[in-house]
Amino acid sequence: MNRRELIQQIQEKQSFLCVGLDADLAKMPKCVLGLDDPIFEFNKAIIDATAPYCVSYKPNLAFYEAFGVKGMVSFEKTVQYLQEHYPTHFVIADAKRGDIGNTSKMYARTFFQEYKVDALTVAPYMGEDSVTPFLEYEDKWVILLALTSNKGSHDFQMTALSFENEGRDETRRLFEQVILKSQQWGNEENMMYVVGATQGRMFEDIRRLAPRHFLLVPGVGAQGGSLEEVCQYGMIPGDCGLLVNSSRGIIYASDHEDFADAAAAKAHELQQQMAGLLMKA
Amino acid sequence: MNRRELIQQIQEKQSFLCVGLDADLAKMPKCVLGLDDPIFEFNKAIIDATAPYCVSYKPNLAFYEAFGVKGMVSFEKTVQYLQEHYPTHFVIADAKRGDIGNTSKMYARTFFQEYKVDALTVAPYMGEDSVTPFLEYEDKWVILLALTSNKGSHDFQMTALSFENEGRDETRRLFEQVILKSQQWGNEENMMYVVGATQGRMFEDIRRLAPRHFLLVPGVGAQGGSLEEVCQYGMIPGDCGLLVNSSRGIIYASDHEDFADAAAAKAHELQQQMAGLLMKA
Repeated sequence: MNRRELIQQIQEKQSFLCVGLDADLAKMPKCVLGLDDPIFEFNKAIIDATAPYCVSYKPNLAFYEAFGVKGMVSFEKTVQYLQEHYPTHFVIADAKRGDIGNTSKMYARTFFQEYKVDALTVAPYMGEDSVTPFLEYEDKWVILLALTSNKGSHDFQMTALSFENEGRDETRRLFEQVILKSQQWGNEENMMYVVGATQGRMFEDIRRLAPRHFLLVPGVGAQGGSLEEVCQYGMIPGDCGLLVNSSRGIIYASDHEDFADAAAAKAHELQQQMAGLLMKA
Repeated sequence: MNRRELIQQIQEKQSFLCVGLDADLAKMPKCVLGLDDPIFEFNKAIIDATAPYCVSYKPNLAFYEAFGVKGMVSFEKTVQYLQEHYPTHFVIADAKRGDIGNTSKMYARTFFQEYKVDALTVAPYMGEDSVTPFLEYEDKWVILLALTSNKGSHDFQMTALSFENEGRDETRRLFEQVILKSQQWGNEENMMYVVGATQGRMFEDIRRLAPRHFLLVPGVGAQGGSLEEVCQYGMIPGDCGLLVNSSRGIIYASDHEDFADAAAAKAHELQQQMAGLLMKA
């Protein structure tokens, strides 16, 4: 899916919601646990219930790998189900991969050719040759970690780098350097950045460096980020430029038989807020 | 496996070689391609041939995930084969994982409880809560990316950070900050660092910051690093403190039916060099 098509979906649905499919058996309702492939059945019910209110789904690989080979079957079935039944939804594999060039190439093939997802989250620490192999696929996206939603984002991402610019000493924070440097590798048509909803006014700083890039924003809901603040400082008028993810707050809204309805209600509620915020922008 | 046991293995075998199991069907000999699970059969033959000359094996997950569910079965069988037949070899899952705390916890469970490997490579970008969940398992290891072997290591890892120390402005490179900061989370009994063999005299700087930690050193062989230089600047007398990895240089030494013998010869050659270097230290 390309940038224009994604924006079109956002405008049609008046939503920039991404639903995080973090399959945790410990949190799932009892009624699915007895089924043959509980993770897939749970996801299928959640997808069918929430699809009208969101433009994207984001399974986090950690939750599938945790069940070994069986979990990867559930992941594959989930992605295939999305592609068959909801081909206009943007599918993100949240895997935070990144390795030397030769190895990143393998990961790129896996996610873009085998699983055929639209986008993959990638960790920037290993630099250019760890990222560029993911950029060679048409209409596929790298979503690069920039400023994450967790407490640990302060450990390295927020530290200041010193460098010389035209003879003067300047400083720039690591996440800013990641955003600037990576624009030499990709562009707003094939690269997004992860910026946590918990980062508040940092969105202003990020928009100065990346005025046109889409941002994938986790951390609304369970992690405490504010949707209003994210939109106030991060939204691109007309293009939206945001995919805001909620996982636990939607998919585990109820642990009873009504779990899909409860998820739909939560997703609908967020979609309504988003419609209002899109209107204001 | 704990630090003492690892050192004992190194001393007994006079080797600190880690063999990288990067399963690439395109490079495998034709004679294994027709078998039921060619990746596992290839690995099994390589392991049986090289086990006397190495202390560790490191499958890189990218190469298994690339074959989807089938690849993960090959990975699982490889790890189980190692545990059953070579329980004193140190098994590293090279996966470069790292996510918010709640998610890293899932990855830790996957690799340490399900697959039961000894160590996992972890990316530091997301900071403390992305790393610490991996440190909660006894005799299991985090191998944190510090200064990698690829060209992209210059993009972020080598940039200088500025910070204030007792009122004075100081600078430190990002990989140095990763090494220092992470020592607040783990120690030499549960944490190693990845340092590329291509980094030469940087090993001196790293030993100043981490005099007792083991280093996992990729990049000898195909990537061009020098074993002598790594040992000159990185070895800890008595404890060795190094695991030097070679993947392609060993496992694809021949693409004919003699592939296992050719791998054994390459591994033996490296072991002989290592024995000499251990003697000198």
